[in-house]
Amino acid sequence: MNLITISREFGSGGRELGKRLADLLGYDYYDSEVIAAIAEKSGYDKGYIEKVLDQHGWQNYPLTLNSSFIAPNYTDPMQVNLLLNQKAVMEEIAAKGKNCIIIGRNADVLLSKYNPFRIFVCADMDAKVKRCFERAPESENLSEKEMRRKIKQVDKARAQTRAIFSGSSWGDPEGYHLTINTTGWDLKALAGALAAFVNSYFENNA
Amino acid sequence: MNLITISREFGSGGRELGKRLADLLGYDYYDSEVIAAIAEKSGYDKGYIEKVLDQHGWQNYPLTLNSSFIAPNYTDPMQVNLLLNQKAVMEEIAAKGKNCIIIGRNADVLLSKYNPFRIFVCADMDAKVKRCFERAPESENLSEKEMRRKIKQVDKARAQTRAIFSGSSWGDPEGYHLTINTTGWDLKALAGALAAFVNSYFENNA
Repeated sequence: MNLITISREFGSGGRELGKRLADLLGYDYYDSEVIAAIAEKSGYDKGYIEKVLDQHGWQNYPLTLNSSFIAPNYTDPMQVNLLLNQKAVMEEIAAKGKNCIIIGRNADVLLSKYNPFRIFVCADMDAKVKRCFERAPESENLSEKEMRRKIKQVDKARAQTRAIFSGSSWGDPEGYHLTINTTGWDLKALAGALAAFVNSYFENNA
Repeated sequence: MNLITISREFGSGGRELGKRLADLLGYDYYDSEVIAAIAEKSGYDKGYIEKVLDQHGWQNYPLTLNSSFIAPNYTDPMQVNLLLNQKAVMEEIAAKGKNCIIIGRNADVLLSKYNPFRIFVCADMDAKVKRCFERAPESENLSEKEMRRKIKQVDKARAQTRAIFSGSSWGDPEGYHLTINTTGWDLKALAGALAAFVNSYFENNA
């Protein structure tokens, strides 16, 4: 199984890049599907799950749980429950044994034993703001300043969630194989180049 | 002309990766050649040039010179002279109009008007220490601790030199198209995958 995980800054285009890459490679693609599966498993609403998983008072949480994933001091059983469900969903995806790409949700850490090819996608702030306004016209009521704040908040939450699972820092190039800055790139051309890279990589590391 | 610049952490394997990539792509390759050309131009010894260019009391130097490259407040005319020679050598390489790879020496910033494909190569400290000992048996008299210190010193100097030329930080993924972490990778396989990426990229961005 070739497993690719894509972590990304909010607005960097990482999700679109991942989808295009999956299409080009013929890989399965998991994004919101992960949340949907947690919903099915737990019986909770998708929106609620996203909210619980993204909102953290868990900065004080003990680090580096990773594969053992024990949460003795953790105070909110709901969050623990959902995190365990998230891990179970990830394991089920991996157990299928099919080549796939998983977007976000700390799949790189949760599935580290499968030796995923880890990609991080970033972009400069101006490019991210522009992309966010383009893809979400309903955000037009946000000012540019508010959009910048939102981007920073989302990324901060992502960094905090990662800190639960791993000692390595979210976005630190040492935690990934490739870090891709999408600023100024055509995502379609980039996906094509990346597909060529990935095919060559897995051929030589099979 | 397809121009690729490779900046790299000391011991990351960036130089070997660049050489392999140049061979696979059939591109010209510039590494120590840049220093040799400065030596020819300036009349100074190569070792002396490396030393002057790498040793900095220039942290107070005004930032973001880039294309204008004026150094009004700069106190050491020798360093200014060598930096101007370095820039001239870079321009001569670009003026040839041939596809090429340039290792280090802030080619990404000095030749930014040619829109280079900018790569940064990093690795985790353990991997860098291991590589340094492997490739330089004469360093065996360094302890591991001393090697770590050396790696940090070299990289600090590189970061400082970059700060002269550009407002962006050395090693910050936002300053490069691709950041590659070589830890645990076979450089030969990596070079092959990267060549596939680069070919696809330039085909679609020609």
